[in-house]
Amino acid sequence: MAKIRLRPIKATTKPRDDRDDYFYDQPGSLPGTLSIEADATPPVILLFDYNQTALTCQELATPEECFPYLDTDSVSWVDVQGLGSENILQRLGQVFKLHPLVLEDIVNVPQRPKVEEYEDQLVIIARMVIPKESGVGFYSEQVSFVLGEHYLLTVQEEPEHDCFEQVRMRIRHNKGVLRKQKADYLAYTLIDAIIDGFFPVLEAYGEYIEDLEEEVITNPTRQTLQKIYRVRRELLTLRRAIWPQRDAINSLIRDGNELITDHVHIYLRDCYDHAVQVLDMVETYRELTSGLMDVYLSAVSNRMNEIMKLLTVISSIFIPLTFIAGVYGMNFNTEKSPWNMPELNWYWGYPLCLAGMAAIAFGLIYFFWRRGWFENFSTIQDEETEANIHKSAIATPRSKRRRS
Amino acid sequence: MAKIRLRPIKATTKPRDDRDDYFYDQPGSLPGTLSIEADATPPVILLFDYNQTALTCQELATPEECFPYLDTDSVSWVDVQGLGSENILQRLGQVFKLHPLVLEDIVNVPQRPKVEEYEDQLVIIARMVIPKESGVGFYSEQVSFVLGEHYLLTVQEEPEHDCFEQVRMRIRHNKGVLRKQKADYLAYTLIDAIIDGFFPVLEAYGEYIEDLEEEVITNPTRQTLQKIYRVRRELLTLRRAIWPQRDAINSLIRDGNELITDHVHIYLRDCYDHAVQVLDMVETYRELTSGLMDVYLSAVSNRMNEIMKLLTVISSIFIPLTFIAGVYGMNFNTEKSPWNMPELNWYWGYPLCLAGMAAIAFGLIYFFWRRGWFENFSTIQDEETEANIHKSAIATPRSKRRRS
Amino acid sequence: MAKIRLRPIKATTKPRDDRDDYFYDQPGSLPGTLSIEADATPPVILLFDYNQTALTCQELATPEECFPYLDTDSVSWVDVQGLGSENILQRLGQVFKLHPLVLEDIVNVPQRPKVEEYEDQLVIIARMVIPKESGVGFYSEQVSFVLGEHYLLTVQEEPEHDCFEQVRMRIRHNKGVLRKQKADYLAYTLIDAIIDGFFPVLEAYGEYIEDLEEEVITNPTRQTLQKIYRVRRELLTLRRAIWPQRDAINSLIRDGNELITDHVHIYLRDCYDHAVQVLDMVETYRELTSGLMDVYLSAVSNRMNEIMKLLTVISSIFIPLTFIAGVYGMNFNTEKSPWNMPELNWYWGYPLCLAGMAAIAFGLIYFFWRRGWFENFSTIQDEETEANIHKSAIATPRSKRRRS
Amino acid sequence: MAKIRLRPIKATTKPRDDRDDYFYDQPGSLPGTLSIEADATPPVILLFDYNQTALTCQELATPEECFPYLDTDSVSWVDVQGLGSENILQRLGQVFKLHPLVLEDIVNVPQRPKVEEYEDQLVIIARMVIPKESGVGFYSEQVSFVLGEHYLLTVQEEPEHDCFEQVRMRIRHNKGVLRKQKADYLAYTLIDAIIDGFFPVLEAYGEYIEDLEEEVITNPTRQTLQKIYRVRRELLTLRRAIWPQRDAINSLIRDGNELITDHVHIYLRDCYDHAVQVLDMVETYRELTSGLMDVYLSAVSNRMNEIMKLLTVISSIFIPLTFIAGVYGMNFNTEKSPWNMPELNWYWGYPLCLAGMAAIAFGLIYFFWRRGWFENFSTIQDEETEANIHKSAIATPRSKRRRS
Amino acid sequence: MAKIRLRPIKATTKPRDDRDDYFYDQPGSLPGTLSIEADATPPVILLFDYNQTALTCQELATPEECFPYLDTDSVSWVDVQGLGSENILQRLGQVFKLHPLVLEDIVNVPQRPKVEEYEDQLVIIARMVIPKESGVGFYSEQVSFVLGEHYLLTVQEEPEHDCFEQVRMRIRHNKGVLRKQKADYLAYTLIDAIIDGFFPVLEAYGEYIEDLEEEVITNPTRQTLQKIYRVRRELLTLRRAIWPQRDAINSLIRDGNELITDHVHIYLRDCYDHAVQVLDMVETYRELTSGLMDVYLSAVSNRMNEIMKLLTVISSIFIPLTFIAGVYGMNFNTEKSPWNMPELNWYWGYPLCLAGMAAIAFGLIYFFWRRGWFENFSTIQDEETEANIHKSAIATPRSKRRRS
Repeated sequence: MAKIRLRPIKATTKPRDDRDDYFYDQPGSLPGTLSIEADATPPVILLFDYNQTALTCQELATPEECFPYLDTDSVSWVDVQGLGSENILQRLGQVFKLHPLVLEDIVNVPQRPKVEEYEDQLVIIARMVIPKESGVGFYSEQVSFVLGEHYLLTVQEEPEHDCFEQVRMRIRHNKGVLRKQKADYLAYTLIDAIIDGFFPVLEAYGEYIEDLEEEVITNPTRQTLQKIYRVRRELLTLRRAIWPQRDAINSLIRDGNELITDHVHIYLRDCYDHAVQVLDMVETYRELTSGLMDVYLSAVSNRMNEIMKLLTVISSIFIPLTFIAGVYGMNFNTEKSPWNMPELNWYWGYPLCLAGMAAIAFGLIYFFWRRGWFENFSTIQDEETEANIHKSAIATPRSKRRRS
Repeated sequence: MAKIRLRPIKATTKPRDDRDDYFYDQPGSLPGTLSIEADATPPVILLFDYNQTALTCQELATPEECFPYLDTDSVSWVDVQGLGSENILQRLGQVFKLHPLVLEDIVNVPQRPKVEEYEDQLVIIARMVIPKESGVGFYSEQVSFVLGEHYLLTVQEEPEHDCFEQVRMRIRHNKGVLRKQKADYLAYTLIDAIIDGFFPVLEAYGEYIEDLEEEVITNPTRQTLQKIYRVRRELLTLRRAIWPQRDAINSLIRDGNELITDHVHIYLRDCYDHAVQVLDMVETYRELTSGLMDVYLSAVSNRMNEIMKLLTVISSIFIPLTFIAGVYGMNFNTEKSPWNMPELNWYWGYPLCLAGMAAIAFGLIYFFWRRGWFENFSTIQDEETEANIHKSAIATPRSKRRRS
Repeated sequence: MAKIRLRPIKATTKPRDDRDDYFYDQPGSLPGTLSIEADATPPVILLFDYNQTALTCQELATPEECFPYLDTDSVSWVDVQGLGSENILQRLGQVFKLHPLVLEDIVNVPQRPKVEEYEDQLVIIARMVIPKESGVGFYSEQVSFVLGEHYLLTVQEEPEHDCFEQVRMRIRHNKGVLRKQKADYLAYTLIDAIIDGFFPVLEAYGEYIEDLEEEVITNPTRQTLQKIYRVRRELLTLRRAIWPQRDAINSLIRDGNELITDHVHIYLRDCYDHAVQVLDMVETYRELTSGLMDVYLSAVSNRMNEIMKLLTVISSIFIPLTFIAGVYGMNFNTEKSPWNMPELNWYWGYPLCLAGMAAIAFGLIYFFWRRGWFENFSTIQDEETEANIHKSAIATPRSKRRRS
Repeated sequence: MAKIRLRPIKATTKPRDDRDDYFYDQPGSLPGTLSIEADATPPVILLFDYNQTALTCQELATPEECFPYLDTDSVSWVDVQGLGSENILQRLGQVFKLHPLVLEDIVNVPQRPKVEEYEDQLVIIARMVIPKESGVGFYSEQVSFVLGEHYLLTVQEEPEHDCFEQVRMRIRHNKGVLRKQKADYLAYTLIDAIIDGFFPVLEAYGEYIEDLEEEVITNPTRQTLQKIYRVRRELLTLRRAIWPQRDAINSLIRDGNELITDHVHIYLRDCYDHAVQVLDMVETYRELTSGLMDVYLSAVSNRMNEIMKLLTVISSIFIPLTFIAGVYGMNFNTEKSPWNMPELNWYWGYPLCLAGMAAIAFGLIYFFWRRGWFENFSTIQDEETEANIHKSAIATPRSKRRRS
Repeated sequence: MAKIRLRPIKATTKPRDDRDDYFYDQPGSLPGTLSIEADATPPVILLFDYNQTALTCQELATPEECFPYLDTDSVSWVDVQGLGSENILQRLGQVFKLHPLVLEDIVNVPQRPKVEEYEDQLVIIARMVIPKESGVGFYSEQVSFVLGEHYLLTVQEEPEHDCFEQVRMRIRHNKGVLRKQKADYLAYTLIDAIIDGFFPVLEAYGEYIEDLEEEVITNPTRQTLQKIYRVRRELLTLRRAIWPQRDAINSLIRDGNELITDHVHIYLRDCYDHAVQVLDMVETYRELTSGLMDVYLSAVSNRMNEIMKLLTVISSIFIPLTFIAGVYGMNFNTEKSPWNMPELNWYWGYPLCLAGMAAIAFGLIYFFWRRGWFENFSTIQDEETEANIHKSAIATPRSKRRRS
């Protein structure tokens, strides 16, 4: 497997908005108040109006230009990108006759994904994730859907990224059945694209976790810990994005709505299955990272054990020897008494002393060797080598598979 | 991001009431007994009586002064602040014909948030949080609502803080639709203000947790641990406040009540979404802090590893050398035998000995260097610097965004 | 806050019965078998027979003396205290026409709290806790209720403690509405007294946990660990007592029963709220203690870090110095060669040597000081002092409040 | 409390069958295939046929001998013990007209406890535990019930142990109401005996956990850890046995079945309560053991702390002293310079040196004493003694109580 | 028990597909798009067409050859193995009139197990596991079922392994009732075979976990940790496979479908029980491995304790002795003063010094021995031996039992 390029971990902390998030009004302020950020991008309004045979596709200058398209039989997809102008958004609300709370939910991002029914509209708040260009991580953005009988209004936070390009292509090139269907099918198609957009993000995490597994086992450092923690935090964010989304889709299926035809129900069921799969994967990855944390802690303890072993081996061998050397460094007066350190005057005194020291040293080394204290040093080396071989061995089929 | 000013952690322990809380009567005492604290603030009674065109707004001296307003078609909001006088509260109970248990719930704070239906009244017990002026932390206060057909009675624990100021402004200046609506809409507005009041508190925690993350990684101390523990404890308190509140709002929506019009139902649904969002954030923060605790433990272990490494490096290098010095400090009599420490009399004895020691020392240093024991000392430094740079880099857009 | 007097921790382990508990028959034995403990207290039978105007209040010698009171319109409360005589209990069963299984549940304590309906009786098994006189901890006792139309039979395990004294007072002095109500209201009053009896026990735990928090942070010892573990165990016991009780009250409210009037339903709802509050507190305390365990573990690790730092500082400073001293203690013969330890004969040899040692020592000390290894020693001291000041500062309002 | 005799821990690992259990067929094999183990005991068939007045009680040679008893009005209890002969079991199936899947469930042990309804039979699979003769631990065995209108077929895995002896006694001696009742009451009685059979097993675990608590605190060893782990594993097994059993009994009560009379329903409710109690105890014990694991880990850390303290105290005291001794062991030539170690020639040189060393040593000891490093050594001793006294003090009433 | 041969742990990491799994389309792509992997095996189509008397069994070259069999009364089992050709799969979809989403689910593996109803078809997605030939671990493969009135289409990912061989044998040899039944019974039989296929896999894990338990206790190494982590990860995968499968079978039973006859319902219930058992075992094993992780951590700590003990014992004994030797190595001039180290000139000076050293050494050894520091070294040895004996003692009956 080609080593996945990791962006330096700092950039991974980017999706901050999703952490301390959820938009909130000033407590007690008017419901329906729109809060526009000063630096928000002014909205771009794209219109796709199509039926099986005809297609209009243009950028609109004002929301009011939608009017002629809304009540025709053809499907009108009005895609608003960017939340930068209160004036335009308010006018948009009037064109589509949006309830003030709906407009608030659309504009005051982030909101929790949900489905809400209004008289002749179905409002869906969804959260879209777009993988970072390099490495793991993702940008996330709210997409709001307002589904009417003949139109679909979608509002995105920013015009930069989305995962609808494929859908636009299918409309333009009239691929598949999309142009033959109603607005509800278009809504399904877009929601499906959003859900499917979680998979590449998760796959990157999956590979990253595998790399972490290897790192934890072969070479755990302080950065490893931070990486694990950050993956956990980002998975938490992902879970918070997909969980309510799954519930929203489920309530769409279960509660029914006249704007959603039976025909589309079957597709939504498929979409729901995918959302459940995403959640499954997120949960699995979370369990894996929490297991990794345990492994990390154990690895640190093991490393400590080895440090201590080294210290103990060296101390245990040399401290007694130093003591012996100390004894024969004492200055007892050998002349005053035959009992005072007669060894010093022996012919073989020094060699015997050294031999004794060597015997003690080798005895201790043998003792430690028997208890297996020296094993780790060699085995670790082997293990790593083996692991690498194995890694590359099974990597081939998989990367081939995914990229095919 | 401007470094958030933390009040010294001691003050954070303030919301004690919420920890060992819930009011309880003397076991076996009369239901309906009011327990007034000796030092409680005497109640202030504020009346807002309004319809679309007219507005009366005054402070009442006695509860009985409410009478003329209660049964008129205009909406009367009686806001009682402070629980300091049993006499006044009892009379209030009579004016509003409160069930003794309701009066007890209102007065004997804290109670668990809940909704209860009585004959022609709807009683809602809610918990309001107000962020501390500086740093993280919050004050919390019970607000009791009694909703009748034409009136809304609210009772707060203390007159000092509340998060209703915006609402009063809207009544006074007739902003939005509030003055056109009934008492149920006013109740919704106030509950919504209470729920929205959790967000700034949580945002402060969010930022504080980020600071803790940085602290845990770059410089974990004993205080860090206490801070994490205290954040966990306060999040627990917050969760206990918002959880039953969410359930209460949900039961309001689900069970219906003739005092709540359909029109207001839609707004309550929005309010419920916000309560769910608050709970989501609390749970996320709790998971983050529990992850932080793990990281802290690992960081402490890592630090221990480094201390041990230092000890081991120094011991491993000097203990063998000291042993050698000890050997040549022995007093074997070189005159008695040519085998007794002949090195002492060699011409190059001392330089050779020093050279040997140096060789051993460098050999060990090389050994440790190869095993990567010296890496941490330098990398940590770099890492911190980098982290800071990154921090300030992404801080700007965010703080701008939030404050806009 | 006045330092709470802790009974020595041994006594805290007392409520053993509740740990390995639940009564069980010899497997396969007759249902309805009563097992009386040899040393159980013989029962005392107290009768309160009252209506709004009259009151009989006496101790009965035999169960049969109840007969004249049972079918009158006045409310008869027969309170049996002690389970010591099979004969009396069997006769009691006959007097009240108890199903054999009911009698078994009453006598073979402890049973799980529950509600059971029989033809014209409602049987409630409850668990009462009574705080220890000093310190934390509690005694617990089963109270069985048999509610008939005109009578209420309660059976307690032991005559010593109960939390009904207030209720008896209210009957005797005709306080409140109790004497005006039926037997169902009496049952509610007693159950409410039981539930409210959990609060003082929990409050003691709340204060004890606060003390433990302080202990864990400032001075964790082995006893601290045991205390935390024991609090956890006792909270587990409390939870097991209150959980089924809450469910039992809930089923009373939900399922309805003709013996419980609508009027009393409202009161039971209040009682249910209190049970939920108790459970809330127990769960919160359990989470706090489990957090404390983490903090304890970290504190132990931190302490280890400091011990190791001390060892490392002392070893790192003195081991190199000792090595130098060792070098100059070597006996190389300076007369054989000018290269053999010429320093020994220098004029400034010894002072230079000492100066070098001092330089090394201060260099190392500076190194450790730069890395912050000496900080902890001073800060800890400060921190404790501060904590104490803070503690006493906020203690006053609270203790005043609770005791008011 | 008499010290509970623990079988050596190895025997505790015995109930292996329950760990890697659940019987499974060869995948894809015929449903209804019976797999008889080669060494299974051949079945013993016991017949009890009784009504209020008459009793037949005999061992049958063949299943077919049951025929005359099955359709009479008297209750026939056919108790088959042992699963050793496919032929006999197949014939048994024919005699009782068992569905092939039922026979498979009966024979292919272990199965998950459950209740299944067939046309005119009710099949109950239960799991019986029998305490080991000595110490903690249990044997477990499947008991299958087939309840017909006038008969009850029970099949046990092995003839050795069961907990039905009391029931047989009651039938033989016509004690209680058993002989007056139908087969459904007999089924209840046996199920009740099975559930009650869990209590003595759990009580043994309760006492064992208490012993472990003491062991963990006073003298944690590696075996302690294994014991905790094994208790956890066995409690897991117990939970898996009782959990589905509780659900099965509950479904019996809830779903009703014409074979179970209303009269017996009340008894089953009692039985269900007992199952819930068993589960409660198992869960409590599991939480206790998981708490014990934490305490064990802390105890190990504490012990490490004390080891390190000892090392640090000894090192900190002697290393500096050794350094000083080393200094005065240096061989600087005092004759070459008055600055070279003049102390060696002082009159009070040696005593002053010793005094200085003593001063340093006592200074350090005082330093350590002030920081409380010596406290543990003495307190631990006391603590243990106290704990033992306490232990025996409260043991008496309890053991008396249980055995009474 | 014959020591289970473990494949080297690397191979255990094989089931990668199941970890970062779930197939996903390019976001926004056409629903119904088939993605065929370049190296996928071209499909093999096996046909079994049978009724009670006749049997056709052949390999088909093209999907269209199925036509003559599909609408006859006999049961046609079309078993497609391999997903390698889009053309063939598309034609298969046409032959069986599959909804595009169904074909997508069949081809774009892996999908989450589920049941879906279409007009006159029932689609079941299942996951089959096949144990590795040696050691623990498994391959997993998706099997899709399309059940019509007279036919059953199954599609497997690869032709290599499956667990249907027994079923094919039963069809060929007309064993049991299979040939007498309809297609729904065949579907049940195959699903049952899939569920039963989990048991041998789990049994291998059960034995492997037992081996790990022994390894953790007697000889924990770094590999042990990795093994535990990997078992956890694979159990996670298994759980994710069986959990939705259980739900799918349950929904089959609960919701009913006209394609499933009542007769087969009873069998499905049995099959559901088995799925629950599998889940039970997976959960139990997960709890065991998480317990093992704790034991491992404790074991590492214990080991550290022992290393530290050794270091402390050796340091504590020799450091003081070395100090004494150092003292008598000092060069105080005995001639200048009678106070200067007079011991050096004593007659018994040296022997007394040695004796003092010995006394100190033995005193310390006695001190350590009393505190139990030497116990571990001997007991561990014994323990291991015992454990092994026990192991082999109970292994025999079990292995016999399973293999019988």
